[in-house]
Amino acid sequence: MSAEGQWERYREWLYDDPGQGFRLDVSRMGLQSEFVERMTPRLEASIEAMRRLEGGAVANPDEERMVGHYWLRAPELAPTPEIGSEIRDTLRDVVEFAGRVRSSEITTPSGESFEHTLIVGIGGSALGPQFVADALGNPGDRLRPRFLDNTDPDGITRVLRGLGGDLSRTLTVVISKSGGTPETRNGMLEAAAAYRSLGLELGPHAVAVTGGGSKLDDFAEERGFLRRFPMWDWVGGRTSVMSAVGLLPAALQGIDVDALLRGAAAMDRATRAADPRSNPAALLALAWYHAGDGRGTKDMVVLPYKDRLALFSRYLQQLVMESLGKERDLDGNVVQQGIAVYGNKGSTDQHAYVQQLRDGLPNFFATFVEVLDDGAASGIEVEDGTTSGDFLHGFFLGTRQALWDSGRPSITLTVDRVSAERVGALIALYERAVGLYAELVRVNAYHQPGVEAGKKAAAAVLDLQRRLLAALAADADGGTAEQLAARAGAPESVETALKVLERLAANPGRGVKRSATGTPAQAIFRRE
Amino acid sequence: MSAEGQWERYREWLYDDPGQGFRLDVSRMGLQSEFVERMTPRLEASIEAMRRLEGGAVANPDEERMVGHYWLRAPELAPTPEIGSEIRDTLRDVVEFAGRVRSSEITTPSGESFEHTLIVGIGGSALGPQFVADALGNPGDRLRPRFLDNTDPDGITRVLRGLGGDLSRTLTVVISKSGGTPETRNGMLEAAAAYRSLGLELGPHAVAVTGGGSKLDDFAEERGFLRRFPMWDWVGGRTSVMSAVGLLPAALQGIDVDALLRGAAAMDRATRAADPRSNPAALLALAWYHAGDGRGTKDMVVLPYKDRLALFSRYLQQLVMESLGKERDLDGNVVQQGIAVYGNKGSTDQHAYVQQLRDGLPNFFATFVEVLDDGAASGIEVEDGTTSGDFLHGFFLGTRQALWDSGRPSITLTVDRVSAERVGALIALYERAVGLYAELVRVNAYHQPGVEAGKKAAAAVLDLQRRLLAALAADADGGTAEQLAARAGAPESVETALKVLERLAANPGRGVKRSATGTPAQAIFRRE
Repeated sequence: MSAEGQWERYREWLYDDPGQGFRLDVSRMGLQSEFVERMTPRLEASIEAMRRLEGGAVANPDEERMVGHYWLRAPELAPTPEIGSEIRDTLRDVVEFAGRVRSSEITTPSGESFEHTLIVGIGGSALGPQFVADALGNPGDRLRPRFLDNTDPDGITRVLRGLGGDLSRTLTVVISKSGGTPETRNGMLEAAAAYRSLGLELGPHAVAVTGGGSKLDDFAEERGFLRRFPMWDWVGGRTSVMSAVGLLPAALQGIDVDALLRGAAAMDRATRAADPRSNPAALLALAWYHAGDGRGTKDMVVLPYKDRLALFSRYLQQLVMESLGKERDLDGNVVQQGIAVYGNKGSTDQHAYVQQLRDGLPNFFATFVEVLDDGAASGIEVEDGTTSGDFLHGFFLGTRQALWDSGRPSITLTVDRVSAERVGALIALYERAVGLYAELVRVNAYHQPGVEAGKKAAAAVLDLQRRLLAALAADADGGTAEQLAARAGAPESVETALKVLERLAANPGRGVKRSATGTPAQAIFRRE
Repeated sequence: MSAEGQWERYREWLYDDPGQGFRLDVSRMGLQSEFVERMTPRLEASIEAMRRLEGGAVANPDEERMVGHYWLRAPELAPTPEIGSEIRDTLRDVVEFAGRVRSSEITTPSGESFEHTLIVGIGGSALGPQFVADALGNPGDRLRPRFLDNTDPDGITRVLRGLGGDLSRTLTVVISKSGGTPETRNGMLEAAAAYRSLGLELGPHAVAVTGGGSKLDDFAEERGFLRRFPMWDWVGGRTSVMSAVGLLPAALQGIDVDALLRGAAAMDRATRAADPRSNPAALLALAWYHAGDGRGTKDMVVLPYKDRLALFSRYLQQLVMESLGKERDLDGNVVQQGIAVYGNKGSTDQHAYVQQLRDGLPNFFATFVEVLDDGAASGIEVEDGTTSGDFLHGFFLGTRQALWDSGRPSITLTVDRVSAERVGALIALYERAVGLYAELVRVNAYHQPGVEAGKKAAAAVLDLQRRLLAALAADADGGTAEQLAARAGAPESVETALKVLERLAANPGRGVKRSATGTPAQAIFRRE
């Protein structure tokens, strides 16, 4: 396309909201008016479905739940006054509690101020807080969060050792909606052991964010946690960042949570527009649909040109892939939907994989995030009249152009600055776009039936491990994986048994010894 | 497939090297013997091509260069004695220099010991050091590296402020093979300004890793850098981690660089095997080919179940995508090759996007990395007889099984532990697999012609910026983006001009003012 034609398309397709310091440019996605016209009835129906959702319709039929993350920033829209009050009360409690920690009214049992925050959570209970902390915080911040977001014992030890003696002045925030997530439970118990090793108790150093009456809720009450904040069944994990899940860590770090909510609320208003062309979430959903033919045939590569937004792609990876990656549509037909998401930051990633984006497989569309304000710049000139920030912006425009010249489509999001308000708006924009796209391709964006199978299989592995250890204990001669699997009553699980036995044998003190010779199938495992 | 059939396949396809503590299992990739037989002649030719490469053939015809990263861990294989000596001498110099910094023989100008390391580099000059430091280091390590890996002024400020007064005891390592990478040059100049603000000079706090006679080499000599280490034209950026690029930061942090090289050398020996079935790199290349039909139709999702390996996927993203993502094959035919790579770590990612992997788009194959040794585990039981590490391993096996049950293929790499030797081996394995796969699909793995276009376009943007500023200076009335682009002699670049002007206007002190009203096309820009 000629430069002139592209300038015309830019003006035609631009969504510009100066009040929100936000722009969306889909002019390089190859959308045509006929396509938009053809899609408009479906989009309007999608927007209407979102309206019903916001009104309190049950949108997660697996769990019979409403989907209410939009109410978190507009409690007046909640379907009942009780829900509205709960949202307001919780926000007030979060802000008040964080303020009292920051002002050292709330202290450790020995009267010291809390200086560090340790978040124990995984998935939606970590990705939102991580993104917000990195986008809006700074390395030296008091109460900057560190994370236990896995059940890797070495990884947990590394984080806890990094805190060292500072653990005594660390506030641990345990986040689990269901209260039963094993990774989070494990991380919490490991943290409790670390406090104990300093002669301290977890409870007076901890708060919980969890559903009322959950296992974690009970545990927190028993152990005398400083506070318990609610999670509601109508907020999904991947959209929980504006509940206590995300607000509490942010408020502890001194981030303006009101601005975060305000930015999201403003974007919510903008993305309720009935006309797709003046609704940025509808434009995004349309562009995704067009790029991937409504079947996700193109990966979404997310390239923010700003270090602070480097975790945005990881946040979106969950939001998009867990919401859209579904086997069946709303009618039960097998559709195997989804959109794969990856990316880190520009211009760094230009030196990693833009080679492939420009020249190789055309199996993606790019999403550039442009930030106008350079932020905390030194102001020095690296060349005559030119700053580091000029180079960053030049690389963004140059790379976008180079992709365009080789026929690779891209979306550009522009924000005036990285602020709590804008981060709230970006999150809200993608929440709505995902909801609309899900309606377009007729999948349920609000459940995750596919993760159960892995959890069940994992539980079976742990059960098999117990039975293998019992089989080893019962016979000093031990046996091969095949023999032991049979004795453990799982002759069909030889490969799993082998892998469990190999790992136990690799860890001293687990009571399993492996013969040094032979193939894995021939190896003899004995009790140690 | 029945569990019994899978157990048979496991035994049939397993590559097991107990001496290296390494296993590769491609049994869940659907490979059949006929496919392997059909591919064997091409694979043998690929292995032979790699042999020629290792012998010193010119494999980067764009730049008329040999490709010698394999010599870095086996200098006796270098094609000339001079190259072999250079490799040995540089290794010796790196280890000696790092030792003298660590023992405080080499100090700051005021005689203090260096306590921190700041790496300035991007792409291959950052990803390798980042991966190695995170895999093998610990948060409290002396001389643990921090990175300036972008030209984002705010991001640079954030890192430098994080160092604060400690900058005076920070050794800055500037890494740029060409010595002309703008991001790295900018980061270096920003660091120099930060030293200056403390009344210090960069030179006596800095070392350079760069090609002899490069701009950076000259600069380092002029400014009295403590030392300059060589980069050779026969080492590509994305395979430079075993040159001074990766070894110097690692040695400074106290990582065993000899073990890193030893592990890589051992894997190199294993991956030279002529028989594809007993060559793990050939098995990987075969599995990738089979999964993606030799056209990259499946993304590579990399899931190490170990926090320390979380950056492996980002490292591989560059190695795989920049090597394989090519427009043309060796005969000049347009082929648009590549394989997209993404992933973070398990079990964390199960809570992010395994929903899509299990149920959604079947557009990927998974690569699990299993680590047998739990590492620095607390040893506590989180349930009766069960540890956090048992859960991690159970989740890995459970998720792999759940993917398999829904027909999603996966590769499993197993290492006995995360050690310098094993990290070296993993890197070497993928370097060879990428080389072999490139031969199979007949693309050149050792150049990156596609990144030039973006760089040129970026330079044009910066040039346009200068001309726009001149046009603004020449006429106090200013004008619209369209008018100013014309006056700057670039009427075809209105959109770019608009974006440059908007950004300058968003940053105070850049001399550009934008009228508050109107659409972007109508906005008037004036000198401030």
